[in-house]
Amino acid sequence: MTSTGESTHGYVADKDAYLKRMSRIEGQARGISKMIVEDKYCIDILTQISAVTRALQGVAVGLLDDHIRHCVLDAAKIGDEEAAVKIKEATDAINRLVRS
Amino acid sequence: MTSTGESTHGYVADKDAYLKRMSRIEGQARGISKMIVEDKYCIDILTQISAVTRALQGVAVGLLDDHIRHCVLDAAKIGDEEAAVKIKEATDAINRLVRS
Amino acid sequence: MTSTGESTHGYVADKDAYLKRMSRIEGQARGISKMIVEDKYCIDILTQISAVTRALQGVAVGLLDDHIRHCVLDAAKIGDEEAAVKIKEATDAINRLVRS
Amino acid sequence: MTSTGESTHGYVADKDAYLKRMSRIEGQARGISKMIVEDKYCIDILTQISAVTRALQGVAVGLLDDHIRHCVLDAAKIGDEEAAVKIKEATDAINRLVRS
Repeated sequence: MTSTGESTHGYVADKDAYLKRMSRIEGQARGISKMIVEDKYCIDILTQISAVTRALQGVAVGLLDDHIRHCVLDAAKIGDEEAAVKIKEATDAINRLVRS
Repeated sequence: MTSTGESTHGYVADKDAYLKRMSRIEGQARGISKMIVEDKYCIDILTQISAVTRALQGVAVGLLDDHIRHCVLDAAKIGDEEAAVKIKEATDAINRLVRS
Repeated sequence: MTSTGESTHGYVADKDAYLKRMSRIEGQARGISKMIVEDKYCIDILTQISAVTRALQGVAVGLLDDHIRHCVLDAAKIGDEEAAVKIKEATDAINRLVRS
Repeated sequence: MTSTGESTHGYVADKDAYLKRMSRIEGQARGISKMIVEDKYCIDILTQISAVTRALQGVAVGLLDDHIRHCVLDAAKIGDEEAAVKIKEATDAINRLVRS
């Protein structure tokens, strides 16, 4: 919650859960570095990279859900144009995610 | 290089480069956690997640390239069956990557 | 517009544009079959498959944008629960897209 | 098989299977157009697009597997440089696929 009390970003209520997920992802990334240091088999490293990628995209889809649920709907209460701006941002983000 | 001197994983020659890329990815992941702590705008966090995902997939494609270039070709010198095993592993890894 | 006059799916206004894009995608898919019939080089076929995949995902992101812009916002005018249902559907669809 | 009898593309042995998969994909693409014509629910169309995308990527991974199994290994029998060219093509194709 910002000090001004204005409607904040959608994910704030789940902040701890997101931080826990990100901290697990950081750990997985460190694990991949360690596998490289230890000359682990490339295919096993690739399996770990797929797992981290999936975890990151899970976080992203969660943030998008929160964004639509809060930022978009809050903007829609102000006006159609305000909602349109937030939806365009969401769609652009979805586009980047789908292509990444 | 393993102590037995056997042909090692393809990426070993580029180990430092991979470790540098992974350390940048770890830094980016920490940056995302920090953005969440600081209540940054969800869409900006999503942009960062797309960037980390792309960076991770860049590492993965590099490892795959090294895998084919070394593990698969080395196995092919031993025999068709040995190559087939390595190629199946590579294809399964590609499949996981494409879907992640 | 359905005969009952109820609020219709978001994409209906752009129906012709979507049909034109899908018809181009169908043509590209037929082109890939033709390349296989004619023993074209595998890598060139893969380039075409990437192009069709990107085109399909462009259609999907467009439909999602329309879905949020219309179905979600219309539902939000009825009530929070109605909006929540539509948003959950959108998020599940995003999840499937990101992983496909 | 080309008339010159030269080693042909890897997928040629499975040509019928690939054509069958592509013809199913063409049918699915036509089905999506029909859903749009009939004003079907956007989320159901998105589900179909995810299914087609997955089917296309299945074909792509199959072609890549055949490419490595045949084109790359055949080139490796000729020489390291020849193999390197084919592997670079494969890696570029994987890169496009992962990002599409």
